[in-house]
Amino acid sequence: MSNPAIILHSPQLGENIGAAARVMRNFGLTDLRLVTPRDGWPNPAADTMSAGAFEAGVTVQVFENLPDALEGIMWLAAATARLRGIEKRVGDAADAADAAFERLGAGQSAIMFGAEKSGLPNDAVAVSDFLMTYPVDPDFKSLNLAQAVCVFCAEWGKRREDADRVISQDKAKLGEPAPRDELYRMFEHFEDELARAGYFFPPEKTPLMKDNLRAALIRADWTRQEVQTFRGAIKALALGRGKARVDRDD
Amino acid sequence: MSNPAIILHSPQLGENIGAAARVMRNFGLTDLRLVTPRDGWPNPAADTMSAGAFEAGVTVQVFENLPDALEGIMWLAAATARLRGIEKRVGDAADAADAAFERLGAGQSAIMFGAEKSGLPNDAVAVSDFLMTYPVDPDFKSLNLAQAVCVFCAEWGKRREDADRVISQDKAKLGEPAPRDELYRMFEHFEDELARAGYFFPPEKTPLMKDNLRAALIRADWTRQEVQTFRGAIKALALGRGKARVDRDD
Repeated sequence: MSNPAIILHSPQLGENIGAAARVMRNFGLTDLRLVTPRDGWPNPAADTMSAGAFEAGVTVQVFENLPDALEGIMWLAAATARLRGIEKRVGDAADAADAAFERLGAGQSAIMFGAEKSGLPNDAVAVSDFLMTYPVDPDFKSLNLAQAVCVFCAEWGKRREDADRVISQDKAKLGEPAPRDELYRMFEHFEDELARAGYFFPPEKTPLMKDNLRAALIRADWTRQEVQTFRGAIKALALGRGKARVDRDD
Repeated sequence: MSNPAIILHSPQLGENIGAAARVMRNFGLTDLRLVTPRDGWPNPAADTMSAGAFEAGVTVQVFENLPDALEGIMWLAAATARLRGIEKRVGDAADAADAAFERLGAGQSAIMFGAEKSGLPNDAVAVSDFLMTYPVDPDFKSLNLAQAVCVFCAEWGKRREDADRVISQDKAKLGEPAPRDELYRMFEHFEDELARAGYFFPPEKTPLMKDNLRAALIRADWTRQEVQTFRGAIKALALGRGKARVDRDD
């Protein structure tokens, strides 16, 4: 059990990574995960802007893809300026902090931010539980990446003392929600079998079809047991279909 | 009547000024006032980091001293990490935004931030109505200047739509609170007469004595009428004392 992780997906400027780490540490957050940072890692510009945050406890992990970065993450919020017509819970930084706080007993949450110019890719938004959006002026809505991180961290800061108390209580886990990597494997299993069944057609719509499926499934707040059950169902269907085809081929 | 001003007192880095302007504009704030910026103005580094905020409506005024920068300001919050044993209202960014919002009908508020390393000088804190402090980790409490501005702006952003509604209603002013520059002239008047009366002794304690006086007086939420009354009282005392001395000299 721990404070939320901050995930920066494909960040471009080391300065923003460093500034994000600094403000995370200001408000008691220490788990920073980078997915494919443009300029690699370590990054001297990040060190300069961090004001010593890395030495003061902010850990950095670098990942080649989002699923790996989500290992052990139980609840994921995606920072986005555009609400993309995907049916998800939506709220501001305070709502995201509340939701993460409520789940403290159930495992780690993460808040994910996209690249400076392009924001988050659709496939990252699709696997999120929550869309976090800020009440910005519609005529000037592009926040600096580190400022976007700052707004969430400041909200978390308000809950930090309470959160530290909850974390130190080390509550017994109830319900055993499925970690994000198990969900990913479930999705991939499902999609592999759907692909084999010819479900994804036409090919150019495949990414959209997958995103929509994942967006729907992710809302279910899966427990580990339910993931096992669903994967069992996929396997059974796939085998049955295989068998049926064999039968037909006969 | 308008949204709060942001005052940067003796900012050092143009980058921070530009980043502050950007996040102000993100959340609907446009009145930026600089007191003795180290590198003068305009500043190319500020332009780069502003992402066009100056073209999109953020106005910048530069002042040689704080009293000039406070022209027309009715309520002033000072961002500070240290609570200095001065008796003032204290709260976080949400409290400051609430207070500024409540006063929307009564004139403009301002939120003031100090220099990157040193923060606000004591004489600036002394003339503030409110100390704004953030729930930072005590082991890593120094926020980047633009991030400190961001935290307040994000809180203001939550109230922005309501604030714009209030501002556009252009409510009739009740009570006519005294603008900050009138208070400054009142303080100076008072202090000049006190100096003439030999009140400030020993000389090295003069700044502290003035700060304490101002800190006490400022809590009174003066109306313009009250300022006039008080200045009349000072004048009367000064004349009386002058007269008494003339009498004595006779």
